[in-house]
Amino acid sequence: MPFSSKEPLRIGVVLFPGFQALDAFGPLDCINVLSRTEPITLSLLSTTLDPVPTQSPDLPSTTSQSILPTHTFATAPPLDILLVPGGRGSRGSKPPVSEAITFIANTYPTIKYLITVCTGSGLAARAGVLDGKRATTNKLAWREMSALRPEVEWVARARWVVDGNVWTSSGVSAGIDVTLAWIGEVFGKEKAQGIADWIEYTRHEDSEVDPFAELYGL
Amino acid sequence: MPFSSKEPLRIGVVLFPGFQALDAFGPLDCINVLSRTEPITLSLLSTTLDPVPTQSPDLPSTTSQSILPTHTFATAPPLDILLVPGGRGSRGSKPPVSEAITFIANTYPTIKYLITVCTGSGLAARAGVLDGKRATTNKLAWREMSALRPEVEWVARARWVVDGNVWTSSGVSAGIDVTLAWIGEVFGKEKAQGIADWIEYTRHEDSEVDPFAELYGL
Repeated sequence: MPFSSKEPLRIGVVLFPGFQALDAFGPLDCINVLSRTEPITLSLLSTTLDPVPTQSPDLPSTTSQSILPTHTFATAPPLDILLVPGGRGSRGSKPPVSEAITFIANTYPTIKYLITVCTGSGLAARAGVLDGKRATTNKLAWREMSALRPEVEWVARARWVVDGNVWTSSGVSAGIDVTLAWIGEVFGKEKAQGIADWIEYTRHEDSEVDPFAELYGL
Repeated sequence: MPFSSKEPLRIGVVLFPGFQALDAFGPLDCINVLSRTEPITLSLLSTTLDPVPTQSPDLPSTTSQSILPTHTFATAPPLDILLVPGGRGSRGSKPPVSEAITFIANTYPTIKYLITVCTGSGLAARAGVLDGKRATTNKLAWREMSALRPEVEWVARARWVVDGNVWTSSGVSAGIDVTLAWIGEVFGKEKAQGIADWIEYTRHEDSEVDPFAELYGL
């Protein structure tokens, strides 16, 4: 286990308007439970300290939830782990998306692990940090995402992919599976299964079994 | 289907400090996707308009996320559906928990559906609205929850239970399953499965299959 139990694990989450709620809160719920026994500091990062809505400016969903960042990208503390959710708002190349991409590019060389969920791998890919690496992404957005950066070795059939210190997952709820798998790697399998049981979650335990790649003909 | 496609469905969510993140955001993610095609209004309700943290005042978890209510219990608009998450903070009988219980008791007679997740059924039970009804709850907190109100017909082995207009689910991630089942009932099975596929979620489709009741010896 690469972390001493006395040294807090410093986790940061990249937020932007139009992030997918479950992309962030699936992993965060696992981390909240983990933090009952392991010392963890959590930073919720965005362009400003304004509340960040799940609603994307370009999509007419009528429901939205807003969460409070704890830091801006400019005031982010040193981090061990960066978690990048996806969502409708991850598209385009204007701020705040461009600022999230710049933050990922600048931060990746300093962290121990990068975890992406869903189209969050599109942001990481555009930051250049997946170049030459195997990675996966949301299966319904597969063609759009995999076209963003041909330097990435995109893997279509995977619930999640690990390459070095980069863990990328498939869409939305797959973020729970990649987070539990990562907790299993860092804190032990028993801890990960304990959290899965605590949240009454039936895990995907095999990273290579991906019913949604099949469903969407990939 | 009891709702016309032109009339917005008015959903309210009860929030309190120490709500379990995934209890709320599993169902909310499904509702956010649903709201791309169906007219829905969403109210996030709490005692005040202050941000509501997932961290419970009495538990030393080190990570927390805060979300913004849109209304207080006193200013809540008329609702069709009330969603009640659980979490560590649902315990005790002081405000804000007592205020949430009073709100549920006062609102239940006016709504079309009540949906609870996890220990949220403990709040509904204490509000008296589950009396004489079959209901389930979190399986790790089973004994504590089922002792709260003997007038409820507690069902130990169930991913979720439907009795009349009340839908209660098992712990945390079971909230996704009960929400998808409820969407299937109200908007049709195809719509529910479409959302499950969109969020790449492998559903529990049988409400009576409950691996966690078994795991915890219930």
